[in-house]
Amino acid sequence: MLDPILSYVQSCQTRFLDELIEFLRIPSISTLPEHRADMDRAAVFVRAQMEAAGLENCRMIATSGPPLVYGDWLHAANAPTILCYGHYDVQPPDPLPEWLSQPFDPTLRDEQIYARGAADDKGQMFGFLKAAEAWLKTESGLPVNLRVLIEGEEEVGGAGIEQFVRDHAGELTSDAVLVCDTTMFAPDLPTIDVGLRGMVYAEVHAIGAASDLHSGLYGGVAPNPLEALARIIAELKQADGKISIPGFYDQVRTPSVAERSSWLRLPFNEEEYRRGEVRAEALTGEVGYSALERTWVRPTLEVHGIPGGFTGQGAKTVIPARAAAKISMRLVPDQRPADIYAAFERHVQALAPKGVTVTTKLLNTADPVVVDPDDRFVQAAAAALHEVFGKPPVFVRSGGSIPIVAMFSGVLHAPTVMMGFALADCGAHAPNEKLPIANYYRGIASIIRFFAHAAR
Amino acid sequence: MLDPILSYVQSCQTRFLDELIEFLRIPSISTLPEHRADMDRAAVFVRAQMEAAGLENCRMIATSGPPLVYGDWLHAANAPTILCYGHYDVQPPDPLPEWLSQPFDPTLRDEQIYARGAADDKGQMFGFLKAAEAWLKTESGLPVNLRVLIEGEEEVGGAGIEQFVRDHAGELTSDAVLVCDTTMFAPDLPTIDVGLRGMVYAEVHAIGAASDLHSGLYGGVAPNPLEALARIIAELKQADGKISIPGFYDQVRTPSVAERSSWLRLPFNEEEYRRGEVRAEALTGEVGYSALERTWVRPTLEVHGIPGGFTGQGAKTVIPARAAAKISMRLVPDQRPADIYAAFERHVQALAPKGVTVTTKLLNTADPVVVDPDDRFVQAAAAALHEVFGKPPVFVRSGGSIPIVAMFSGVLHAPTVMMGFALADCGAHAPNEKLPIANYYRGIASIIRFFAHAAR
Repeated sequence: MLDPILSYVQSCQTRFLDELIEFLRIPSISTLPEHRADMDRAAVFVRAQMEAAGLENCRMIATSGPPLVYGDWLHAANAPTILCYGHYDVQPPDPLPEWLSQPFDPTLRDEQIYARGAADDKGQMFGFLKAAEAWLKTESGLPVNLRVLIEGEEEVGGAGIEQFVRDHAGELTSDAVLVCDTTMFAPDLPTIDVGLRGMVYAEVHAIGAASDLHSGLYGGVAPNPLEALARIIAELKQADGKISIPGFYDQVRTPSVAERSSWLRLPFNEEEYRRGEVRAEALTGEVGYSALERTWVRPTLEVHGIPGGFTGQGAKTVIPARAAAKISMRLVPDQRPADIYAAFERHVQALAPKGVTVTTKLLNTADPVVVDPDDRFVQAAAAALHEVFGKPPVFVRSGGSIPIVAMFSGVLHAPTVMMGFALADCGAHAPNEKLPIANYYRGIASIIRFFAHAAR
Repeated sequence: MLDPILSYVQSCQTRFLDELIEFLRIPSISTLPEHRADMDRAAVFVRAQMEAAGLENCRMIATSGPPLVYGDWLHAANAPTILCYGHYDVQPPDPLPEWLSQPFDPTLRDEQIYARGAADDKGQMFGFLKAAEAWLKTESGLPVNLRVLIEGEEEVGGAGIEQFVRDHAGELTSDAVLVCDTTMFAPDLPTIDVGLRGMVYAEVHAIGAASDLHSGLYGGVAPNPLEALARIIAELKQADGKISIPGFYDQVRTPSVAERSSWLRLPFNEEEYRRGEVRAEALTGEVGYSALERTWVRPTLEVHGIPGGFTGQGAKTVIPARAAAKISMRLVPDQRPADIYAAFERHVQALAPKGVTVTTKLLNTADPVVVDPDDRFVQAAAAALHEVFGKPPVFVRSGGSIPIVAMFSGVLHAPTVMMGFALADCGAHAPNEKLPIANYYRGIASIIRFFAHAAR
């Protein structure tokens, strides 16, 4: 019954790829204010693609940040409504010198498409539009009601979409949410993600003297904010990887024995993972847990940058007046970002050394998420993936955070189905981001079939 | 007998100030490669000033870095030879927003001249040229033989002058070296510096995974070089301010009881110093020593910057593949930079946490220096300062490093006289660098009189 739809996709393969490449050329980096015009260009492009697909009510919705893009098709009487969510913004491409091809000059190489956003999330969310187009151009309509909502600030906390969903929950009623922004557990192994870590991203600001001082004249008496931050960071985590913030682990829920033992059957070898994927001399983290447990169901704390002082070439002998540290914590069910941030703030304040004033600033948060694998929409996705890949999917968790997923659950009371088509080494947030070209098409086919199964 | 010379200075006051302002306008920042042309402009300017002063053999000497500028006057038979040393390069002006006037737009305000280099060292070394001019334009010649040697890479380690002095020691024979690059202990209190701290400036490079990783997907298993550096930095110094590097204090010479007790008579109040000069909530450093001892005769270790990861605005969730820390140690007699760097390197390597490869890189060094206060040229400077300021000078040490001074002692076997005219709050290496306009002229008068006393 789906043959005409799948044939349509077959006949449009080249155009579908060309259009994705056009999309990937837009440097829609939401973190960097100088790319604001590119955000608008990307949003306009997405709206045009929605219209071309045959969606209705296509529009851009202004927010305090980059616009949301919305389109729908709501003529499937007595069928469920699926909200497809994705994002058109991308991470900054630095460090640029490590890219083999330019991040915004999409390049086909080794059967992959290389570009910033290829995996996270342009190359995946584009499948919603192409699957909808294939249905609408070949059949009398979609088997489900469809809403597509694409945001432009996922990488910077998504304040705009959060406000919009809260304010317009009544107009967005849906039975399930579909997100394609995760990775497959292994190449050719279809994967459904039933858990995401949450996040608290904060800055710690340290202030010493009223102005920068010469380390020759004042070294030995002046407080050094960089040294203070180093001491604080060193105190936040023990040598065995346990986070030292009082109360940090109090709300952590241990996953079921069944779930943990299913992970033992996954094709996973820690030594290969270390050498081939992490590519480090050793894996680190909390003792007493496997690598999968450490990245999926254990919280972590990471330092992302320590701005301040002199970081240019050569030697400048300055004791900086101020410095900061960008620190995030990944959270697991049932940790609450507000509680964790409060505990973090208290602990950091308590660690401030003599002469240094320390303040913290919360940049953004995400709740952790778990989804029931037996939910009918999760099962519809499982059936679709089974058909496309020829084998049943595995159910895994993800260490990443998609802040909006927790929102959908809390505000729309809809379960979120997370089917991902990028691979673990896709380079999201890193140089040489990529997506297998085959998986771009598998994604489109899986979404087409998901709509069919979800309608039953 | 010096009246005509001092009258000449009086009559040239305005021009002398205008010429200094012209000099200060040149952004001769030796640390930043993009200012290379400004280095040459500054050197050409200094040579022209030497010629205008009446010095002979004025020339620029090519080095691997910015050129040296040399001029001499060698017609004082049977009189000693004085080598005047200074530098025309300056520190970078960042953080720019904290300057009340632009760093390279010299501004007269509150009886000070504000500009990068006003104190360190353009505003002080310019006195050599003006003092020589005053003698040569009013008398038949100078009472001493004079060599003036001005370098352009003092702020980046002075490799060029070091090579030149080593290679041309025979042509540079001198009986004493005069350096005007230090500060006065208090306003109106003439000061001779008889000790300088040495320095080791190094970078610690930490490498974790082979490329940047997403902290969601890999937080909990990936080594974090920034965290590693924080742990290493925290381990380098104890909470009581003692540096933890094994053997670090082995070569430290305790100053004499007489010298230490003379410091107790200096006009110095730690609480005023904290509030008025350091401007911090508390002074830090090694327990058991006074603030003067901690900055003058105790070694220290400071972190200047931690490049790596994401330091821009907003939130980027990256675990960087690599990061670095810029760290310097100030050394005191008889610590040897080579020994200290070796001990530092060994200790840092030993502190490298699992999964992170740590290497160190030496950027530059300076030997610590002590000078005998009873030396005849030090006493000549004391007499000159007594006449200009109307009171005898105090003998102090300085926490800063002037790498070339140790070279002069080692290679030319000449004592170094350090008379400084900047104040402690001069902002060298910091925003709003300044020199009291009066001290610019007092410096010129002191150098004029020093030449006379040195000739006796």
